[in-house]
Amino acid sequence: MTAVRQATGEQAAFRDELLERGLLVASGVSGLYGRGAVFESIRQRVDALITTLAAADDPQAMSFPPLLPRRTLETIGYLHSFPHLAGSVFSFDGDEAQALHQGELADRHEDWSEYQTMTELVLVPAACYPVYPAVAARGPLPPGGIVVDAGGGWVFRHEPSEDPARLQMFHQREIVRLGAPAEVLAWRDTWSQRGLELFARLGLAAQRDRASDPFFGRSGRMLAANQREQELKFELLVQIAGDEPTALASFNYHQDHFASKFGLMLADGGGAHTACLGFGQERIVLALLRNHGLDPERWPVAVRQELWGP
Amino acid sequence: MTAVRQATGEQAAFRDELLERGLLVASGVSGLYGRGAVFESIRQRVDALITTLAAADDPQAMSFPPLLPRRTLETIGYLHSFPHLAGSVFSFDGDEAQALHQGELADRHEDWSEYQTMTELVLVPAACYPVYPAVAARGPLPPGGIVVDAGGGWVFRHEPSEDPARLQMFHQREIVRLGAPAEVLAWRDTWSQRGLELFARLGLAAQRDRASDPFFGRSGRMLAANQREQELKFELLVQIAGDEPTALASFNYHQDHFASKFGLMLADGGGAHTACLGFGQERIVLALLRNHGLDPERWPVAVRQELWGP
Repeated sequence: MTAVRQATGEQAAFRDELLERGLLVASGVSGLYGRGAVFESIRQRVDALITTLAAADDPQAMSFPPLLPRRTLETIGYLHSFPHLAGSVFSFDGDEAQALHQGELADRHEDWSEYQTMTELVLVPAACYPVYPAVAARGPLPPGGIVVDAGGGWVFRHEPSEDPARLQMFHQREIVRLGAPAEVLAWRDTWSQRGLELFARLGLAAQRDRASDPFFGRSGRMLAANQREQELKFELLVQIAGDEPTALASFNYHQDHFASKFGLMLADGGGAHTACLGFGQERIVLALLRNHGLDPERWPVAVRQELWGP
Repeated sequence: MTAVRQATGEQAAFRDELLERGLLVASGVSGLYGRGAVFESIRQRVDALITTLAAADDPQAMSFPPLLPRRTLETIGYLHSFPHLAGSVFSFDGDEAQALHQGELADRHEDWSEYQTMTELVLVPAACYPVYPAVAARGPLPPGGIVVDAGGGWVFRHEPSEDPARLQMFHQREIVRLGAPAEVLAWRDTWSQRGLELFARLGLAAQRDRASDPFFGRSGRMLAANQREQELKFELLVQIAGDEPTALASFNYHQDHFASKFGLMLADGGGAHTACLGFGQERIVLALLRNHGLDPERWPVAVRQELWGP
């Protein structure tokens, strides 16, 4: 069983306050929480603010469920890079006697995994993944490429933690740019600036930094170093609880990684490039609560106005 | 592998139209679709309309992720009643050599399930399930009990189908009543009337009918007959595509089933009862599209006004 990452004292105290106030609701599993009305309303206002910022891109909106075809995950090669974070969906396909035994094991909270077999589905690990095959299925991109707003989808990362800023299931607001390399790269850099401005308006002091993904194993360390060196990933980091700042958003240039997997073509027949951005919505809410206090009615007026209007 | 339920000709033609228009987006797996902007905006307006109706109950809002602790599913006894519909989450917990082999199998779209082990998580099969342990953890209910609005949560049912009205992953708008038996039963019956009125305002001719859940196996048939006889479940049915009408909403009296599992108590120390209602949001959108046409701008003025205002 995967070990639960422990929280620092400060992170644990923050989590306890969030639970005490009903901002989050405990489930009994580390990194899995219900959301109280206040928490969820802040998240929805942050989401609406990002929608306003995104309007300049004239994006196409699509939204996707929290599950992805297993085949899509396989095609992307996710299991090579992040096998430790993936979640696959299993189900029962047996007869009545097997169902009875499975149920009896479950009654005693014993292991019933022998009756579960793999389905065609996995959990979505990044909210942009369903976008690439959906757009590729339409044929070549129009001239100038497109922007797809995939909304605030649920994503799964199997990394149980006691730090409330590290959830197993959270909303990632994802916007994807598909087009020619220069278009895509310019868009990625415009957005990392927009993100900094957004956080400034919300009273959050964010630092932009080169970053890398949490690739698995020894070979993963090389991939991560390469990603940093080529400046493929930037993050905006804000102090929440604990010793180090937390990434609230990332801006990622994929070069032709996804485009080549799904055969995404430009209007002129050339291969497309892609970039995406992801805002970690729960982390933004937590950063607001940590920096401005647990009662939004007592937040600075300027921050309240950004979210709820005058 | 679970067999895919085939669609009638009419259902398949309706699905193809939805995909052609970009209302739904194919994923390659039966019963799993992305949503286009128009589809999603209708769903959100329907959701907002239900929120307006629910205001009379002064509900407490909570929202939950699409995953549930496995232990909660075990406690509820779901695997006895609906083993065929449940989805459990598996993950990888191996070393680098195992990760490499798993990745290679995945590259070839071969079976990599041997490297996946059961986690503490399952998919949420009914959006009310996380509510009972969360409320029970607070202690006895206040006098008069409470209403919890669990929002439009994602739920999973492992029943792959070519009928677009039978999805594997969909939004269920769930509201739960917890209190004394008479309070709970009266609330359930008030809402089945409210639901009929809601559908009438949306131009949908709904029939209310006694119903039963799709219990598994031979012993399940007895449970279903019992549920009908005791009038524990009502559904509101509307014609979408195909030969038979489809349930768009259900109103369910659980007696002490959930309350006893989680020790939910009344203010006076007696055992609580519960009821819930679920609106199948995608089915409501599909019923609107089927009955009023695929272009919401050409829907009857009265229906447009209910959803988008004057």
